Amino acid sequence: MPGVARLFTSDNASGVHPEVLAALERANVGDAAAYGGDAVTARAVARVRRHFGEEAEVLFTFGGTGANVVALAAVTRPTDAVLCAASSHLWKDECAAPERFLAAKLLPIETADGRLDPESVRRHLVAERGVHQSRPRVLSITQATEWGTLYRAEEMAALAELAHAHDVLLHVDGARLANAAAALDVPLAALSRDVGADVVSFGGTKNGLLGAEAVLFLRPGLAHDAPRVRKQAMQLASKMRFLAVQIEALLTDDLWLRNAGRANAMAARLADRLAGVPTLDLAQPVETNAVFLRVAPDRLAALCAGTGLAVWDPESSIVRCVASFDTTQEEVDAFAERVRTALV
Amino acid sequence: MPGVARLFTSDNASGVHPEVLAALERANVGDAAAYGGDAVTARAVARVRRHFGEEAEVLFTFGGTGANVVALAAVTRPTDAVLCAASSHLWKDECAAPERFLAAKLLPIETADGRLDPESVRRHLVAERGVHQSRPRVLSITQATEWGTLYRAEEMAALAELAHAHDVLLHVDGARLANAAAALDVPLAALSRDVGADVVSFGGTKNGLLGAEAVLFLRPGLAHDAPRVRKQAMQLASKMRFLAVQIEALLTDDLWLRNAGRANAMAARLADRLAGVPTLDLAQPVETNAVFLRVAPDRLAALCAGTGLAVWDPESSIVRCVASFDTTQEEVDAFAERVRTALV
Amino acid sequence: MPGVARLFTSDNASGVHPEVLAALERANVGDAAAYGGDAVTARAVARVRRHFGEEAEVLFTFGGTGANVVALAAVTRPTDAVLCAASSHLWKDECAAPERFLAAKLLPIETADGRLDPESVRRHLVAERGVHQSRPRVLSITQATEWGTLYRAEEMAALAELAHAHDVLLHVDGARLANAAAALDVPLAALSRDVGADVVSFGGTKNGLLGAEAVLFLRPGLAHDAPRVRKQAMQLASKMRFLAVQIEALLTDDLWLRNAGRANAMAARLADRLAGVPTLDLAQPVETNAVFLRVAPDRLAALCAGTGLAVWDPESSIVRCVASFDTTQEEVDAFAERVRTALV
Amino acid sequence: MPGVARLFTSDNASGVHPEVLAALERANVGDAAAYGGDAVTARAVARVRRHFGEEAEVLFTFGGTGANVVALAAVTRPTDAVLCAASSHLWKDECAAPERFLAAKLLPIETADGRLDPESVRRHLVAERGVHQSRPRVLSITQATEWGTLYRAEEMAALAELAHAHDVLLHVDGARLANAAAALDVPLAALSRDVGADVVSFGGTKNGLLGAEAVLFLRPGLAHDAPRVRKQAMQLASKMRFLAVQIEALLTDDLWLRNAGRANAMAARLADRLAGVPTLDLAQPVETNAVFLRVAPDRLAALCAGTGLAVWDPESSIVRCVASFDTTQEEVDAFAERVRTALV
Repeated sequence: MPGVARLFTSDNASGVHPEVLAALERANVGDAAAYGGDAVTARAVARVRRHFGEEAEVLFTFGGTGANVVALAAVTRPTDAVLCAASSHLWKDECAAPERFLAAKLLPIETADGRLDPESVRRHLVAERGVHQSRPRVLSITQATEWGTLYRAEEMAALAELAHAHDVLLHVDGARLANAAAALDVPLAALSRDVGADVVSFGGTKNGLLGAEAVLFLRPGLAHDAPRVRKQAMQLASKMRFLAVQIEALLTDDLWLRNAGRANAMAARLADRLAGVPTLDLAQPVETNAVFLRVAPDRLAALCAGTGLAVWDPESSIVRCVASFDTTQEEVDAFAERVRTALV
Repeated sequence: MPGVARLFTSDNASGVHPEVLAALERANVGDAAAYGGDAVTARAVARVRRHFGEEAEVLFTFGGTGANVVALAAVTRPTDAVLCAASSHLWKDECAAPERFLAAKLLPIETADGRLDPESVRRHLVAERGVHQSRPRVLSITQATEWGTLYRAEEMAALAELAHAHDVLLHVDGARLANAAAALDVPLAALSRDVGADVVSFGGTKNGLLGAEAVLFLRPGLAHDAPRVRKQAMQLASKMRFLAVQIEALLTDDLWLRNAGRANAMAARLADRLAGVPTLDLAQPVETNAVFLRVAPDRLAALCAGTGLAVWDPESSIVRCVASFDTTQEEVDAFAERVRTALV
Repeated sequence: MPGVARLFTSDNASGVHPEVLAALERANVGDAAAYGGDAVTARAVARVRRHFGEEAEVLFTFGGTGANVVALAAVTRPTDAVLCAASSHLWKDECAAPERFLAAKLLPIETADGRLDPESVRRHLVAERGVHQSRPRVLSITQATEWGTLYRAEEMAALAELAHAHDVLLHVDGARLANAAAALDVPLAALSRDVGADVVSFGGTKNGLLGAEAVLFLRPGLAHDAPRVRKQAMQLASKMRFLAVQIEALLTDDLWLRNAGRANAMAARLADRLAGVPTLDLAQPVETNAVFLRVAPDRLAALCAGTGLAVWDPESSIVRCVASFDTTQEEVDAFAERVRTALV
Repeated sequence: MPGVARLFTSDNASGVHPEVLAALERANVGDAAAYGGDAVTARAVARVRRHFGEEAEVLFTFGGTGANVVALAAVTRPTDAVLCAASSHLWKDECAAPERFLAAKLLPIETADGRLDPESVRRHLVAERGVHQSRPRVLSITQATEWGTLYRAEEMAALAELAHAHDVLLHVDGARLANAAAALDVPLAALSRDVGADVVSFGGTKNGLLGAEAVLFLRPGLAHDAPRVRKQAMQLASKMRFLAVQIEALLTDDLWLRNAGRANAMAARLADRLAGVPTLDLAQPVETNAVFLRVAPDRLAALCAGTGLAVWDPESSIVRCVASFDTTQEEVDAFAERVRTALV
């Protein structure tokens, strides 16, 4: 498909990084025990632990919804509740997979920018309310958020502390954790283990993999049910080595950082290129690889038609642009030009 | 991992066929709409339809358990029951994923060789039994069965007819449908559409893919809920083209047939090489790519130790050997020798 | 327990109306077919139809949460969503029973007074949003609401019309439907069948029964799965006649109206008796049998201590008082005095 | 309904014992805290503990399926399996309520007479089988069984010991535990606490109540989730006192024993009266209140027509007769005569 224009609709529209494809080929030698009992998987787990801590229990999954569901189902019971942002993927974009699989309650909390603040969380963490309400058991935050915004490490730590004080676990939906770490210029552990996160969905697919995610249990004792939960959640790959080797490649030679850093930089460039367009403003600060454009409602259709973007929030007349690991400066500049043209 | 001995434990232990890897690389050009809205996926669906009928609704999934669950969840309600063999993967090896996700009842039926016969099925399809029992809605059969045995096309047709007469759908778990078609020397449609199957899980992973399966709804109207069910079942790949292109490759230049035919032939060769070993007999006829060896209980441990095989059925002292798409004659002969040695 | 003071905490704190107890005794003659195949149940169903329409399919359940879950589970699939008020019992007070049993998504909508308005509902009923979101299938409203407020018949009709225009059903949680009908001086059908409601949970327990509710499917074809759903939802009474006869008694000689009218009148009297207390105001208009008192935060503890009431909404410093079918004027006056005393 | 003939179809066809109705009336005085926070419930719990041990956690439920589901859901996770007899109510007659609500696997085991023997259980309790299979967590037995047969105390103890040795709990479905204790002339604790049972569904409805069951957690720590599970399972009565007082009445003045003893005696009398009928034999020994008659297949229709009984097992041409707490000798004799006449 040469000649296909760069899509800025989603980082899922991009392909596979060449180093990842090469790793897949290298893993394709001879037989290997199925379901994760192989040497490649063991190696990949060891590599993940180097980044997230030696105590991490690590399970690879097919996709991001699967990772979130495995992470949460392993540590909750159906009588529990999971607190999350109303803008979270968990609440908005998983077609009730969490509800169907966990059989528990999600409690969505409104936010301005995708980031939960301690005050709004605390209101849900009041003491025992009796059997008529589900018991909060997990606080799930997304880092970077679905609005492309970031929690600073100390903000995460404050939420973890608040959660733990109420016997609640902190889950990080890290579908774009790499983008957050790249933006803040910190290691992955600095936004997970070091801030007290208990369970993490560590994303790879949006950052240059063919398709692989990892669920990390960072505190001992949490992963007891996780292997069976993964199987039951239909996330156990038979030829596991081909998931594992992708994550290994991502964590080799800083590929995660190179990819995420590039995507972030291209989003920043896009925001820069669009500065000063009169009928346009940024709906959120551009902190990672997403740029949210708010336009006048009467320009919305033209913008979508001219760029191939979809409406993100019809009420606020917002569209989302996302840069990927392999987005180029030329593509950004050409795309910015298309946006300008559509809005004239 | 050169030098790793061929594992006969499972066809999941084998790797990826080179033509499939090449197809993955070819699909990795430029951006593509996520979640299946891309040209590769459209092309793959068209190819599947050429094999299974133009009316087929086709959804790709990550894995086999996911395929079965999506297939069944799309056509059942929680008050329904699914009839299946007690030896089926659905009943035995999916860690209650069907129960958890369908919230419905599985009704296992004992068989001698993994094949359900009309008589045993009919007993479960009696008229209305009232609200205390789940209502049979799907009859699920595995072709080829988990015992490596086969239904002849007319046997499948008889089961379909019986099912339909009771307003029950026929689901075919075709994780090894290719092996069955290769063994019977018929097209894939001859063991699915042509016999009246309604829903099919068409397997690819065990037959040389990296990881991809397809769910096929062969009768109009059945797939209404299927796309959302797939999402909810955590089987919707974001970079769908990389699942789709695998299935496309499998159905190109008869790769499915070459792979399955080779695996079947190697299993037959293995059975042949083991004929006459005095402490050994075949627990089931070798019809596809599996060979079930029954040995004296006091030889079981030695056999497993000498071959790396696992006990399949401790009560009957049976082990399973499986040949793959890339098993060679030399590997079969060497393995047969290891079996003989272990049993002396 | 003579001498026990009247509790204004809940209409569930009251006992059983003497006519209902007498009916239970009358039903206790001889044997009767179990599970609803008896003459008393048939008679009760006929009586319900006289009030809600001859086309109604009627199923009795043990409790109100059970009624709601049976009503919704019978007409939804797990990929569906149910819209409801954020203040609804369904969302707030059923410990995720709907999520666990329906495996579907509840979408809570904020309201000022428990009443959904068409505008806020319409935003959720936009056209096809793809597989990442659940498909709205039911709009559930509570009549009278959990805030004691009312929908006028024309408001219900407008919501039904809006729902139907989007292929969405209207469910009425009528745990206090009798209170609403009594307040508006209309028959029960005027707030259910006549406004286009599709499914109704008709409450009895809060209105003087020992414990019985009814689920009504008012449009043909909706109840197909309902009998098995009720069984599966653990709401099928073996000695069904003793549920049925309670509902029959409630609908005999206008007992439903006498009970609900009395409760409403006593709430109105309470509001009247509390008028003019300086540190107190009504958080909602008193339209049925509940009175919501808002007090200064520093009086909240004293009020609860002095009256036995529980905090309803700690953020707004609100307590709820509920009158029952057998509340007396003297009890209201004495209670009002306790409130005044506590607030001095 | 005077003049209605005694139904021998089910102990659910009988009504309510007068002492129970009287207790209901006595409980109907004044207000009482809802949902079990009342004095009647506290008293009933205390009484249950006198029979089952002071450590028992006690939760009342509406019905028997609800009791079983609450009992099991409170102590399992969805990755677990529950072993039970293939003839158990749990497996056969609950319309997949356990599967839907537990989201776990039921593993049915065939038996000759409804009683599980250690050998058949042990085969399912083998060590770790990996993530593809659910982990056995509960062994559920029915006492008395659905075939009317009994476990002796030492047989129960042997099963408990076996279960505990594999970290598996013993659940007793005691829908007819009273009948078993009456038949064996032992206290209720002798067939529950004293044999090592962990969780018990103690039935009341079939033994003369209007409708009430109790779930008992006999070992500390097991009931942690149970109150919320009961709510989520839609088994939490708002006017709880009216369930509690029924159980209290049942355990007062040995009503449980009088009722169960009478039912057992009447079943024995029926078996005696039918002895010697040439075309009839007993399919199971008559140990409690059920009599299973096996007749020649060509007499089956006539027998059902003449007695109002339903076919229990069409394959074996068996019908079930059940005696109740208020069955009289005259009724038994008249019914035996009807059976004889039908079979001539």
